Amino acid sequence: MTDILDLDTPAVLIDLDRVEANLKRAQDYADAHGLKLRPHIKTHKLPRFAKRAMELGAVGITVQKLGEAEVMADAGISEIFMPYNIIGRDKLDRLKALHERVHITVTADSTETVEGLSAEFANSETPLTVLVECDTGMGRCGVQSPAAAVALAEKIANSPGLSFGGLMTYPAAGQVEANAAFLSEAKAALAAAGLPAAIVSNGGTPDLWRAHEVTAATEHRPGTYIYMDRYQVAKGVGGFEDCALTVLATVVSRPTEDRAIIDAGSKALTSDTLGLAGFGLIEAYPDAVIVGLSEEHGTIDLSKCATKPKIGDKLRIIPNHACVVSNLFDDVTLISGDAVVETVAVAARGKVG
Amino acid sequence: MTDILDLDTPAVLIDLDRVEANLKRAQDYADAHGLKLRPHIKTHKLPRFAKRAMELGAVGITVQKLGEAEVMADAGISEIFMPYNIIGRDKLDRLKALHERVHITVTADSTETVEGLSAEFANSETPLTVLVECDTGMGRCGVQSPAAAVALAEKIANSPGLSFGGLMTYPAAGQVEANAAFLSEAKAALAAAGLPAAIVSNGGTPDLWRAHEVTAATEHRPGTYIYMDRYQVAKGVGGFEDCALTVLATVVSRPTEDRAIIDAGSKALTSDTLGLAGFGLIEAYPDAVIVGLSEEHGTIDLSKCATKPKIGDKLRIIPNHACVVSNLFDDVTLISGDAVVETVAVAARGKVG
Repeated sequence: MTDILDLDTPAVLIDLDRVEANLKRAQDYADAHGLKLRPHIKTHKLPRFAKRAMELGAVGITVQKLGEAEVMADAGISEIFMPYNIIGRDKLDRLKALHERVHITVTADSTETVEGLSAEFANSETPLTVLVECDTGMGRCGVQSPAAAVALAEKIANSPGLSFGGLMTYPAAGQVEANAAFLSEAKAALAAAGLPAAIVSNGGTPDLWRAHEVTAATEHRPGTYIYMDRYQVAKGVGGFEDCALTVLATVVSRPTEDRAIIDAGSKALTSDTLGLAGFGLIEAYPDAVIVGLSEEHGTIDLSKCATKPKIGDKLRIIPNHACVVSNLFDDVTLISGDAVVETVAVAARGKVG
Repeated sequence: MTDILDLDTPAVLIDLDRVEANLKRAQDYADAHGLKLRPHIKTHKLPRFAKRAMELGAVGITVQKLGEAEVMADAGISEIFMPYNIIGRDKLDRLKALHERVHITVTADSTETVEGLSAEFANSETPLTVLVECDTGMGRCGVQSPAAAVALAEKIANSPGLSFGGLMTYPAAGQVEANAAFLSEAKAALAAAGLPAAIVSNGGTPDLWRAHEVTAATEHRPGTYIYMDRYQVAKGVGGFEDCALTVLATVVSRPTEDRAIIDAGSKALTSDTLGLAGFGLIEAYPDAVIVGLSEEHGTIDLSKCATKPKIGDKLRIIPNHACVVSNLFDDVTLISGDAVVETVAVAARGKVG
């Protein structure tokens, strides 16, 4: 048995028992509230966890980019939702090729996107299902009002090769009421217009346990819930004991009494703060603060620590944002307790297009 | 001829003409001041550019991690400086294997690191050259005083398998005088102690054109100078017309009059702000502000723009920090003017260990 402390660093450790518990907890919650779960694979980028979520009851998976969809389709997953505006000939051709081998559904928030999809799929044997993306408070993509959602739904329904599938949002964290109100109004307006929304897809982990309050939603797309991270703990979604992803790093320098340097910098932990102070939580030294990152060095302030790590010590760090860490490593090490189970390639890592 | 606007997005474009000019400008400067150049490959992670810098006169290359050194050694580069504390059995064995096939030099800032190196190299046919890393103001790794530098140099000189090679620093941007003073004092103290520093290695691009003011230094390790970026332009190292790396992105949504969404988020541009407002400069819309990034979306505020991009438009973006962008892409596209020359794999990408 290899102990995790025998691993070279930096390394990403994935606690399989916590993954399983996190997946089950969310599926149980969804089942209890009659919500379907369509988890986002962006957090883990591993076909095995996508499949495990579906074994537990998820109705399919969510991906953000064509490259991720292709990896998951290659791995045998046939129910894929890609909530993204697909623009341009290259991507439309790749979408068509995916559509011919798996059931893939997309979103649009503009007539330009809809027209591009329709031109590509006009002669398709089976139509492409398109949901309307709604901006319910996030301020990113999405139509700006329920009335605009109805207008774009009508455009989709009238476009050759396309089928209107419903509504989708990625909501702002904490704005549950505003999100629910937008979706309810849009859903009612669509029904009144004779275009019922078969799917209303809500998303996000920060408000996962309030997903049932968004009564118009038929399904939810959580992502980070599988690993959790320091940000989600700060949001109250779970505790540090639920965090399944940690970065293992080695102390390589102790230049002063109160400073330690580790071999994990922004190439391992990323610069994402998500509004938090510091760049992660060091499990064994919770009073230590990771005050700075350069690419290959993390700088730690130990001034509040009663005991302090020494050169050569290996530290486990819960990062601020787990998803972006997955994207930085070619492989991750699956563990159970302190034992290494297996090191696996992050199959959908780096799929930017 | 493929035009860059025919490329799928997001893509990283590398302007070969600007690369060549940036390499030559720095080499000419170094030559004029009698400084050796030992460029850092972290910015590009491409053997071809490492070799080109050496053809132009660089005395070797700098890498930060063993994985980078291995890639460069495999590509035929035999003079490698790795200014890092190498800790732990796995890494020491890899260093020894590298030492047997190329000339590799490292740094140390503690007796622990020196003792680990000596244990590994005690029976080596040729000694490993070790420089003392000095903290001349950066607050990262490094001994804290010239006296401590002398003490550690003596330790190295007296350790089996090791040879004392000199001093190294990565200085804080803008602190040229303090950096110069520390190195001069340490160099003099070493000479007085009978341990002359054959190499005094200074680094960084922000103060590259002031490197000659650090009179104790025998060589310099610039990294970002090859591509430049928005941060270096802000520091006055060059102009936007010198920036060789751009991210090509597509406008995928225009949800409001003043908002555009592009298909480049933190997985393409990274969250690094380096103290700048916004996440990059859009060349064709300098008044636009990239106000937010999620993983696959960039949110742009167009409120100050007289003309505004439309859905499907492709935009070239100068990122805040070029080095971290190189680490996110499996390949980059070399260009000349608006023409695509070749797409190449980023050979040393993701080498965290």
